[in-house]
Amino acid sequence: MKCQQQRLENDFTELSKFGPLENGGFTRLAFSREDVAARGWLQKKMEDAGLEVRIDAFGNISGRRKGLSALPAVVMGSHLDTVPEGGNYDGAVGVLAGLEVIRTLNDNNLETKRPIEVINFSAEESSRFGMATMGSKALAGKFDLDTLNKLVDKNGTSLYQALKECGYAADEIASVTIEPGQIHAFMEMHIEQGPVLEMQGLPIGIVTSIAAPTRFKVSIEGRADHSGNTPMAIRKDALTGASELILGVERIASKEAGEKTVGTIGYLYVTPGAMNVVPGKVELGIDIRDVNMGDKDKAVKAVIELMDAIAERRGLKISYQQLCNDEPVALSDKIIKTLKDAADKLQLPSLIMPSGAGHDAMNMARLTDTGMIFIPSVGGISHNIAELSNMADIYAGTEVLLQATLQLAQE
Amino acid sequence: MKCQQQRLENDFTELSKFGPLENGGFTRLAFSREDVAARGWLQKKMEDAGLEVRIDAFGNISGRRKGLSALPAVVMGSHLDTVPEGGNYDGAVGVLAGLEVIRTLNDNNLETKRPIEVINFSAEESSRFGMATMGSKALAGKFDLDTLNKLVDKNGTSLYQALKECGYAADEIASVTIEPGQIHAFMEMHIEQGPVLEMQGLPIGIVTSIAAPTRFKVSIEGRADHSGNTPMAIRKDALTGASELILGVERIASKEAGEKTVGTIGYLYVTPGAMNVVPGKVELGIDIRDVNMGDKDKAVKAVIELMDAIAERRGLKISYQQLCNDEPVALSDKIIKTLKDAADKLQLPSLIMPSGAGHDAMNMARLTDTGMIFIPSVGGISHNIAELSNMADIYAGTEVLLQATLQLAQE
Repeated sequence: MKCQQQRLENDFTELSKFGPLENGGFTRLAFSREDVAARGWLQKKMEDAGLEVRIDAFGNISGRRKGLSALPAVVMGSHLDTVPEGGNYDGAVGVLAGLEVIRTLNDNNLETKRPIEVINFSAEESSRFGMATMGSKALAGKFDLDTLNKLVDKNGTSLYQALKECGYAADEIASVTIEPGQIHAFMEMHIEQGPVLEMQGLPIGIVTSIAAPTRFKVSIEGRADHSGNTPMAIRKDALTGASELILGVERIASKEAGEKTVGTIGYLYVTPGAMNVVPGKVELGIDIRDVNMGDKDKAVKAVIELMDAIAERRGLKISYQQLCNDEPVALSDKIIKTLKDAADKLQLPSLIMPSGAGHDAMNMARLTDTGMIFIPSVGGISHNIAELSNMADIYAGTEVLLQATLQLAQE
Repeated sequence: MKCQQQRLENDFTELSKFGPLENGGFTRLAFSREDVAARGWLQKKMEDAGLEVRIDAFGNISGRRKGLSALPAVVMGSHLDTVPEGGNYDGAVGVLAGLEVIRTLNDNNLETKRPIEVINFSAEESSRFGMATMGSKALAGKFDLDTLNKLVDKNGTSLYQALKECGYAADEIASVTIEPGQIHAFMEMHIEQGPVLEMQGLPIGIVTSIAAPTRFKVSIEGRADHSGNTPMAIRKDALTGASELILGVERIASKEAGEKTVGTIGYLYVTPGAMNVVPGKVELGIDIRDVNMGDKDKAVKAVIELMDAIAERRGLKISYQQLCNDEPVALSDKIIKTLKDAADKLQLPSLIMPSGAGHDAMNMARLTDTGMIFIPSVGGISHNIAELSNMADIYAGTEVLLQATLQLAQE
């Protein structure tokens, strides 16, 4: 039994109609017009495959293939939303591979003991609301109405409003939660978003643990002044303070915390933001990650101390809000073994490896046995218009997913 | 003969209807809806004062009071446009003081030998098109159609389009130019935008020379990558590179160039600008100023060397466009003496001082005898919502302007 590579490739071609940019990349921001159009397309694809489609109050879309029993299902999936100016693979490979696995079972009229589902999680990327993997967090019961109202995008639209605008029943957010045991197993196939598999020439990565982020939203207040008539010595420049912080985060992550610590300032806004005005205010986000909680704690502590020191030395007011401080997550030994056996059976060389990036799998791991398949990212690049994964690798990953699903769905 | 302080104060109250912000500041960006409304108001005020109003192809508005002769006029003026989130005094004091001087002559039915004009220069602030004192530059013949088309704001609107949208005859830009000798003298009253007068407890500053800016528009290109799965060592982060440049400009201006050198990065844009993406591109503006050309050249050279060094060390591509490299301008000894005599006659203590900021006077100085009056800025603050000048100081400055105008208009 084999998946159909051409059919899978056609799906990527069709998906590329949603949110393409002139420069070759894609922007399908969570709950945006482009994201909503892609969701509609996916729903149709699920219906064409004979699946029973369900959309929950957070907009998570799942398609279910009946089993011979009513036992808890084997679930596969990931997300179709992207960062701004991202690619067509991050997230999409996990959703489309899951769909292809089910269509392959249909092709072969193969009935499984357990039901099988493919899911598209809402708002996996944090680009719009500053929080990541939100759809799977909703399944894990992490949202209530209050939180939906408090999270707002940079235009002031709340997550609640965004859900309602898409037609989702946000008021019934409590109904999204599922309990441990309701799902038999969860598997997410995803692009690696790093250079390791490509550098080692391996088509398959099997993930052991997921690094977790600690994130801060930081506000730096100084004093806006005329850039010509304000002597250097009496300035309170919010942007020079921010620059010290940015270089400090780089130094801490590179040299002072753990071997795998990474630290990033990905966005920064300057107010008032004019050529001839000393910046009075800067807002920025800090993202610190590690697979080792101890190393991450060390980095976070150093960054907080640095903010205090810069504020004092430069006469600035620096305030910060910790958006999350997640624990790294270990994935299921059982699923790791199932995936490894599947790869071996298909004679696909694989690497057991950690994930530096967060994924929906990290929330699903609290609900059921969870595993992840990585496939290579060309040049290690993702969250970029140059993001690319080769179709042969996507196909190989899908084959592994198919074999593992067959195994788990007959349990 | 005295100006009317209450009438002058009323003008500021009326002007405060154009572009007020919730936080107390003002935004009247050049050629914006708010700026256009303020211009309409000014034109009406000029007409009410019996002046002959003329609007040139660059939108400069002048109001002319006839003289007994047709000799070249004595001209006063400044600008009504503001930076984003600026105040109601920067520029406005010079326009409204000029208007009040003329109304005072009207009150007293005093006829002068020479005509007297008050002018509102267009687009003095560089906030929108990246270039400052554009209205007076136009008078000095610095613009042609090609330049009007090349200068664009951040929304892609060209200066040409902006002028046309306001109803100005941009195609006739060549007609704006005036020749040396066409104006007898020019005087600009302005807020100091620095702390010196307030610190010394003096109501009047008389400006000797104007520092000139050298400006760069800089683009830093690295590589956008996933913030979780990209090890620190292989990143090409455009924002960490930008941060090094920002701290370098601060260090060069503070310690390595001249005593009065200032250097500022006032705006900065990050692309793609998301929490979980290593910044792939940064655009920013550098503004370097000095009253001493040698010290400024030294700073500019050091900044350029720094950009090259950062690009090489971090594997970034840094390109820059020099927007201007102006010479500091000495003002007229004759006008300095006239203003000093006027202040002495009024028993107002004054300080002979340089200007760190650029002003329309610096372009007018190439066309005629030019001088400037500074009045104190509370806390030295400008280009900020907290910008304030006390009405008593504005009134005192207007009195000096009146006396100097009387002197020059009878020559």
